[in-house]
Amino acid sequence: MADAVNKTDFERSCCPIACALDHLGDKWTLLIIRDLFLGKRRYHEFMASPERIATNILADRLKKLEAAGFVLQQAYQQKPVRYDYQLTQKGEDLRPVLEALVAWGKVYYSSTQVFSSHQQQPISAER
Amino acid sequence: MADAVNKTDFERSCCPIACALDHLGDKWTLLIIRDLFLGKRRYHEFMASPERIATNILADRLKKLEAAGFVLQQAYQQKPVRYDYQLTQKGEDLRPVLEALVAWGKVYYSSTQVFSSHQQQPISAER
Repeated sequence: MADAVNKTDFERSCCPIACALDHLGDKWTLLIIRDLFLGKRRYHEFMASPERIATNILADRLKKLEAAGFVLQQAYQQKPVRYDYQLTQKGEDLRPVLEALVAWGKVYYSSTQVFSSHQQQPISAER
Repeated sequence: MADAVNKTDFERSCCPIACALDHLGDKWTLLIIRDLFLGKRRYHEFMASPERIATNILADRLKKLEAAGFVLQQAYQQKPVRYDYQLTQKGEDLRPVLEALVAWGKVYYSSTQVFSSHQQQPISAER
């Protein structure tokens, strides 16, 4: 298998799972994307999530997500400038990944609860 | 949303995605699980994967995967003792997560290739 692998264009290998994990493989990034699916857009909204992400980690992950094309950053206020964030199509297309994690997590951690947005819409529902 | 969250039984929150990421949220763990789906069972087989996992990281992740019930470790040789690994049902049930990552990765990293097992069976095929 390894003979067929060309690392030229890839951080670690040409495996699509490896490429995905190069961006998403940590404990926080997919939780920020979960929050974006739930309708959160602003820094303080991400900070309010129950996992209590550290501010430096949140800033780092948002910067990386924007650089990699998962989110769009837009200023919603000047002086001081404040930004909000929304998923790009590349980010939106991660929905099946989150849904698969939710389905698996509900089976193996049965007392978990699927988070809802302000509109009380589960992440697996049609938007 | 945060008001409804009870952290009692969980590392970070009762979100099934967070619980999944508590075990799977790094750059390597899902690649080891990918390799197990591809038929790899022994230490040197994981080491031979193109991402070139470091031996200490592999040992750490296999230990954690066994402790969390994702893999079974069995001795296949004595003096010196050598182990092989296979997925439990909990690990096998991650297949939709890997398939979703493969599907997404193939779209956004179009020159990636889906790895095949020794039997040339793609990860998304029936086994």
